[in-house]
Amino acid sequence: MTLDLNSDLGEGFGDYAMGDDAAMLDVVTSANIACAFHAGDPAIMRRTCALAVEKGVRIGAHVGHRDLSGFGRRAIAIAPADLRDETLYQIGSLDGFARAAGDRVRYVKPHGALYHQAAADRALADAIVAAMREFGAELALLGPAATELERAALAAGIPFVGEGFADRAYTPEGLLAPRGLPGSVLGAEAAVAQALSIARVGKATSMDGATVEVSATSICVHGDTPAAVEMARRIRAALDESGTPVRAFA
Amino acid sequence: MTLDLNSDLGEGFGDYAMGDDAAMLDVVTSANIACAFHAGDPAIMRRTCALAVEKGVRIGAHVGHRDLSGFGRRAIAIAPADLRDETLYQIGSLDGFARAAGDRVRYVKPHGALYHQAAADRALADAIVAAMREFGAELALLGPAATELERAALAAGIPFVGEGFADRAYTPEGLLAPRGLPGSVLGAEAAVAQALSIARVGKATSMDGATVEVSATSICVHGDTPAAVEMARRIRAALDESGTPVRAFA
Amino acid sequence: MTLDLNSDLGEGFGDYAMGDDAAMLDVVTSANIACAFHAGDPAIMRRTCALAVEKGVRIGAHVGHRDLSGFGRRAIAIAPADLRDETLYQIGSLDGFARAAGDRVRYVKPHGALYHQAAADRALADAIVAAMREFGAELALLGPAATELERAALAAGIPFVGEGFADRAYTPEGLLAPRGLPGSVLGAEAAVAQALSIARVGKATSMDGATVEVSATSICVHGDTPAAVEMARRIRAALDESGTPVRAFA
Amino acid sequence: MTLDLNSDLGEGFGDYAMGDDAAMLDVVTSANIACAFHAGDPAIMRRTCALAVEKGVRIGAHVGHRDLSGFGRRAIAIAPADLRDETLYQIGSLDGFARAAGDRVRYVKPHGALYHQAAADRALADAIVAAMREFGAELALLGPAATELERAALAAGIPFVGEGFADRAYTPEGLLAPRGLPGSVLGAEAAVAQALSIARVGKATSMDGATVEVSATSICVHGDTPAAVEMARRIRAALDESGTPVRAFA
Repeated sequence: MTLDLNSDLGEGFGDYAMGDDAAMLDVVTSANIACAFHAGDPAIMRRTCALAVEKGVRIGAHVGHRDLSGFGRRAIAIAPADLRDETLYQIGSLDGFARAAGDRVRYVKPHGALYHQAAADRALADAIVAAMREFGAELALLGPAATELERAALAAGIPFVGEGFADRAYTPEGLLAPRGLPGSVLGAEAAVAQALSIARVGKATSMDGATVEVSATSICVHGDTPAAVEMARRIRAALDESGTPVRAFA
Repeated sequence: MTLDLNSDLGEGFGDYAMGDDAAMLDVVTSANIACAFHAGDPAIMRRTCALAVEKGVRIGAHVGHRDLSGFGRRAIAIAPADLRDETLYQIGSLDGFARAAGDRVRYVKPHGALYHQAAADRALADAIVAAMREFGAELALLGPAATELERAALAAGIPFVGEGFADRAYTPEGLLAPRGLPGSVLGAEAAVAQALSIARVGKATSMDGATVEVSATSICVHGDTPAAVEMARRIRAALDESGTPVRAFA
Repeated sequence: MTLDLNSDLGEGFGDYAMGDDAAMLDVVTSANIACAFHAGDPAIMRRTCALAVEKGVRIGAHVGHRDLSGFGRRAIAIAPADLRDETLYQIGSLDGFARAAGDRVRYVKPHGALYHQAAADRALADAIVAAMREFGAELALLGPAATELERAALAAGIPFVGEGFADRAYTPEGLLAPRGLPGSVLGAEAAVAQALSIARVGKATSMDGATVEVSATSICVHGDTPAAVEMARRIRAALDESGTPVRAFA
Repeated sequence: MTLDLNSDLGEGFGDYAMGDDAAMLDVVTSANIACAFHAGDPAIMRRTCALAVEKGVRIGAHVGHRDLSGFGRRAIAIAPADLRDETLYQIGSLDGFARAAGDRVRYVKPHGALYHQAAADRALADAIVAAMREFGAELALLGPAATELERAALAAGIPFVGEGFADRAYTPEGLLAPRGLPGSVLGAEAAVAQALSIARVGKATSMDGATVEVSATSICVHGDTPAAVEMARRIRAALDESGTPVRAFA
């Protein structure tokens, strides 16, 4: 079994920096690249696509709400038809840069509030999947397993890749514990252990000590702070040492 | 000899309407579609591409400055590298909708202030052309002949299509007379005559009565008011009656 | 007893027009002016404030979500602290134009989705009221009576003005019937009758024929289409004929 | 004679940080606060105003082009009437936060490209000054002396405060050397020396070794990097040691 590591990249805007994309592209195998809706801009999209191709990292469209003020983290009551249009727009815009770098967009991952909205709302999940099909190229959908996103992908015949989190605690129901909750964000050691557990046995220990299933062939790591980059490196090293081949999902 | 008629379409935004796209798509053979920078949004891009394909009208990317407040009509001192990135972004975003409608983006026309800036500044013209080449599909560049835009296209081996205007007076130098100038905007009858003259002999009568060359295989008509739509219809009818085949440029 | 008529004005953006502000300012006594978040821009704010002062119409800040794409009609999960900041920003920006025209901002009315969110969520209602108090000048809050907006205003000692609708049907619970529902939007005659009934006895007939209380000293009329302007004129004329003094709330 | 130190602050946006505002507010006596056009947002405006008042620093509106992508550093061909409107809008929006913090906006400084455009173009300078007069409160204009900005202020009876730069080399004509030029950005030691020279004798040594007049009662220091903050601290310390009273301009 192989495991993919993905990270949210290209999240700067104009003169504003966010994270260390170059460092993260040495760690991960898939890059979720912002498309200038919740973050990113054309210059950053070009640079991030070029770096990803140079380092052999797969390019995905990180589609989000058109809400730079809120970094795409605020739920917006978007109509499914509008979401379909905004998703197609974002995939198309990123694909130009992927092609300029010698590759293509290979997958889509919803960002922030949209990630959670579409996981819970079939009409929104269907809208994302509809845009992916319209785009024409073969695209996979990356997101949380056993949600409306997975169901929408399966119904449409789109490949689905389940995603787990290394540094976030799970609830007894197998969902991500809300950020606000004490203990919801794991330290480096616990994150490494959780990544290994998800990779090997598809399970994590929830906040209350129970074992929960986490069906994931990709694990999300963050790079927005130097400590986050360091944690991502440790997770990658632990996976490499454990003999789990880390490579982009098929 | 055949003639193409082009128009700036898809220029609404959200709840804001602009022009009568459906009516104009019955008149023209090429649609310059805004890409959500100076005007337009994903929903309008989808709708306009679908209508264009339905009516057999060619789809072009109307790339402009990221300046919705100014409708792309204000010169912005953009760096060539940024312009290349913004152009590639806009072409890619529109191409998704063109493909969803069953076609592709076929050409690029710069909009508003960018049209004039790039006609006069080779570095900007080269930036647009570089983005077109990176995009990969075969694209033509539509713009004013004998300018830096034409020279940049020729140097890069990109097909160039010269554009004339029916309803705008020309200066003795063969340039568009500035809108502010008295007599710079023609009435319907004069516009029809000028379109026919450009189509037949590649010439127009300038403001001071001299004959100037207008090298154009496409003529731009406007549709932002009911009177403009009516004028466009009359120009199309006059061309049809004159026996000039009106069809999209090769 | 007197009645106020209010309308949402200054809703254009750049080259995009929306409604006939000049006509509506001859009909209403209070102008809810957009502040460049959900609609409007600095030039339109100046023009609308100047016209309002010229015609003796009171100026109010129509505060909305920062969502021009959605015209402020999409619910956004905004944090109360952010809403307080955005409200204060909008009031301040409009007040400059009100002062340039020789008046001040006199009241605040939330727009679109924010109107409904704040009516139902006390923390959001409190955020709007907190910004109004910080602004310093004496401002009234205009909105639906018997909601969190009214309760927040009362708790903070801010004058509250209840608002009714002429052309929208009420549910048996005295709430606005959702736009999608058949019969939810009234014709001119029914709207005139409902305005008179609210003005005289504070009651309307709900969709199911029951009588519901509508506590309103201001009635909202729309001006986004020629038919809407005509309806507003008829409502105003009917109120004038009925002997109800139509003037801005005290 | 006293000297003012000013800095561009509140330049973050949403989740994006820029500079160390708290550190700089311990160094400077005047804060040029961005108004959400070229940088900044309502939450950052509130926070920066509150910190400035807490530390006894004067609040100024740093008005810029509506161009977050370009950080206000790209010249835009804005019409003077539009600039007047955008300036009034920005001053008003910041004043709400200044008042919430217990103070008022005291001055205006144009930002980035607008700084240079208005220094050279009297119609733009007049537009800024016209907005300041309309705002009503007594505001000073901070900018480069002996330019159209100073002339416009004098003609309108607005107090003008000349500004010098510590860390930027001057040309023989007494203008700022363009950033691109080798030697145009000074190191800490040279910057301290230049600040002292401007403070004491109103002169600087230009790039070619000549002495040029710099008429400034305020010196601009930057805080966008840790090194910039450290340089600002050294300049402040050197001025304090030299016996030049550093305080906000009268």
